[in-house]
Amino acid sequence: MGSSPPLALIFVLLLFPSSAPSRARSASVVTRLPGFRGPLPFYMETGYVEVDEVNEAELFYYFIESERNPIEDPLLLWLTGGPRCSAFCGLVFEVGPLKFVSAKYNGSLPSLVYRPYSWTKVSNMIFLDSPAGSGFSFSRHAEGYDAGDRSWSKHAHTFLLKWFIDHPKFLSNPLYIAGDSYAGKIVPIVTQEVLNGIEAGKQPPLNLQGYIIGNPITGERADLNSRVPFAHSMGIISDDFFELTQRSCEGQDYRSPTDAKCEMCLNTFDEFLSEINLGYMLDPKCARTSPKPKTPDRRTLQEEYLYLLKPPPIPALYCRNYAHFLSYHWANTDIVRKAIHVKKGTVGEWQRCNYDLPYTEDINSSIMYHLRVTSKRYRALVYSGDHDMLITFVGTNEWIRSLNFSIVDDWRSWHVGGQVAGYTTSYSNNLTFATVKGAGHTAAEYKEKECFAMIRRWLSHKPL
Amino acid sequence: MGSSPPLALIFVLLLFPSSAPSRARSASVVTRLPGFRGPLPFYMETGYVEVDEVNEAELFYYFIESERNPIEDPLLLWLTGGPRCSAFCGLVFEVGPLKFVSAKYNGSLPSLVYRPYSWTKVSNMIFLDSPAGSGFSFSRHAEGYDAGDRSWSKHAHTFLLKWFIDHPKFLSNPLYIAGDSYAGKIVPIVTQEVLNGIEAGKQPPLNLQGYIIGNPITGERADLNSRVPFAHSMGIISDDFFELTQRSCEGQDYRSPTDAKCEMCLNTFDEFLSEINLGYMLDPKCARTSPKPKTPDRRTLQEEYLYLLKPPPIPALYCRNYAHFLSYHWANTDIVRKAIHVKKGTVGEWQRCNYDLPYTEDINSSIMYHLRVTSKRYRALVYSGDHDMLITFVGTNEWIRSLNFSIVDDWRSWHVGGQVAGYTTSYSNNLTFATVKGAGHTAAEYKEKECFAMIRRWLSHKPL
Repeated sequence: MGSSPPLALIFVLLLFPSSAPSRARSASVVTRLPGFRGPLPFYMETGYVEVDEVNEAELFYYFIESERNPIEDPLLLWLTGGPRCSAFCGLVFEVGPLKFVSAKYNGSLPSLVYRPYSWTKVSNMIFLDSPAGSGFSFSRHAEGYDAGDRSWSKHAHTFLLKWFIDHPKFLSNPLYIAGDSYAGKIVPIVTQEVLNGIEAGKQPPLNLQGYIIGNPITGERADLNSRVPFAHSMGIISDDFFELTQRSCEGQDYRSPTDAKCEMCLNTFDEFLSEINLGYMLDPKCARTSPKPKTPDRRTLQEEYLYLLKPPPIPALYCRNYAHFLSYHWANTDIVRKAIHVKKGTVGEWQRCNYDLPYTEDINSSIMYHLRVTSKRYRALVYSGDHDMLITFVGTNEWIRSLNFSIVDDWRSWHVGGQVAGYTTSYSNNLTFATVKGAGHTAAEYKEKECFAMIRRWLSHKPL
Repeated sequence: MGSSPPLALIFVLLLFPSSAPSRARSASVVTRLPGFRGPLPFYMETGYVEVDEVNEAELFYYFIESERNPIEDPLLLWLTGGPRCSAFCGLVFEVGPLKFVSAKYNGSLPSLVYRPYSWTKVSNMIFLDSPAGSGFSFSRHAEGYDAGDRSWSKHAHTFLLKWFIDHPKFLSNPLYIAGDSYAGKIVPIVTQEVLNGIEAGKQPPLNLQGYIIGNPITGERADLNSRVPFAHSMGIISDDFFELTQRSCEGQDYRSPTDAKCEMCLNTFDEFLSEINLGYMLDPKCARTSPKPKTPDRRTLQEEYLYLLKPPPIPALYCRNYAHFLSYHWANTDIVRKAIHVKKGTVGEWQRCNYDLPYTEDINSSIMYHLRVTSKRYRALVYSGDHDMLITFVGTNEWIRSLNFSIVDDWRSWHVGGQVAGYTTSYSNNLTFATVKGAGHTAAEYKEKECFAMIRRWLSHKPL
């Protein structure tokens, strides 16, 4: 922790005047959800798993059984990015079986409807609020919120082991670790953790099969450096300025350039990007919420358009992130918290993404983890919405190529409903890369049908 | 004419068993249109102007007065591409004040409604079916259909002179020549024709101010060669294949490569493109209508997705070109033809684009015309929908830069409604280049509001 804890943390600490003991693990079936008409058409459970006994940190999760064949279908652990965005976002905006009705908020509870292209149609899914301080996950001690890449990954692994102890019937299902954006950096690290645990004979034995990441951060230069050629090819910067920047910044790390001319170029570049919806360059840039960060965008990997501070801002109804606004009003309602069995007094205001708490990027790059895990023949699917400027498919393609795997199935289109849905290359070591044509940062939010077909095929070991 | 005239031409000739004389010019006010509820909320006139006395070729036009101040607002002559697409397409799908209601065709007349972002809100517009054989324009002799770049341009000029004789009150309005796609090649040539006429003292004196072109063809290599880097940057072809093609095709004209390896690469490239909606790469590729052309796409500049032969195919209702299908059913109805005063027996089936008739590209490149006209200080606006793969903004940007004009207002974003609508550069010689973000080949069809703001500002001599 820094020397002056942020206000939110002080608030969190006030919530636990006495360190009352609580059950380390809990699980409750949820058959109805406020805002959703009738009983849920799928099996859902929420619960907590303590992952840090010293600090009494408990991670909250939403578990949804496969709507096809829960006994045999794979099990996906879904982590959401940020870091510290709630996994509920993954559930309700991306790959889960619910979505908000985009109707003007009138003070009453926002409505939820069934989302037909849910990945739970073909897999069991755990949406995990992690690390502590995300969504409804909490810690009873301030130190429990002091997360980083390493602790997040370890906690996710601890979570899995304990969760499976309570759910032994899923131990034989193929297990995949999944997530996107910043979670794309953590997923291979968690996979490595699980793999280490398996090799060390940790109990219970997990049936790990591989991992899935969308528009993932790696921590490599390519994540941000690639924005410049991508912005050029998308017609956002001119030929001349592109060439000048390339020349001035050759060999530089765009996050911390040492060359003054490069620095100047990147400042201009930031101005060009600041006008654009980076998550999907063709969408309007909608109400942004927080004061402009003092550091230029390129310095940080936070998803700028997810950067919602409390109180939530109100985007226009036509904006894609209007539903994000609704999520605040849903998740912060007492009857909702009661319905999903949130422990009283553990979390103040639920936030889509909680950037108030400290987070240490204590692993520079995930590349070695990708290499280690795939070289052990675990399967990997890396997909990229191709209109995302936060983590471009150009940069992702670049680091995948740098792994120097041989190509098994060369770059080709993949199809859904007779249309090109994107392009894919399969590499040795069971790694598949796929773009999603016309999708943004959280690809499944933009191309539901296509991303569902992608995951269905890939989980079934079929070509995309 | 070739030695075996196409069937359509024979049909056309059968329509004129006797060469009955007709009035060389006609004009009729149209106050109501079948399919449009109530009187038209703008002044509209249709008519014919004979442009080729020998062959008795008459061009059909739709004239719509500015809805603002017809006395002072500019007058735009709008030509549509193809060659030989009807200017009605420009009126009803792009920049005019009407559009089709996209409802399932049930045998009754398709409905039209008012299109609020019409360019006629700020300018008088003539939509000209040209050359003869397009839309409702016709010739009484087969030779009249034997058009090419030169004759089309001359006829457009002749049309203007005769039209102004009958409409002298518009002679003082600023005159602009406009059009997109293939018409983008013709527009600067027509402008040069008009300019020559002015310099030669032809009467009446036209108040030419400049020209406007959208996603224009030039006839230069850049038109097609640029598709390869553009497809690469859009993630349609792989890095490796892009590099191979660039290497193999260096210095080649992609329309007729002489190198075998290049030829092979381009054939593979054609296969990648054949799956995509070239007019807007993010739209689905909808019912295409004609048999696949025997020559690969890159050999021809015809707009592939406009390639509709009779009888029209039926795209899915969700397809953008469903309205194109409706246009056949509207324009081929007797009450419609009567309402717009089409001369009986002159045109068989109205077609969106009539590719049955011969057309000679007898001017290789329009570049010299751009140079000549702009060097005389006539104004030019070149705009490009930046998601068009038929004529990419990359290629257009390339030839504009090759003109070596100095930059007056360097590459910057332009805005509509607080959002980036595209990027623009202004050059000396009064040339402005603008991209339209997220628009396809016929930019105003995709981004109505933005293109309207663009033309309104540019016609008022304001920065975009």
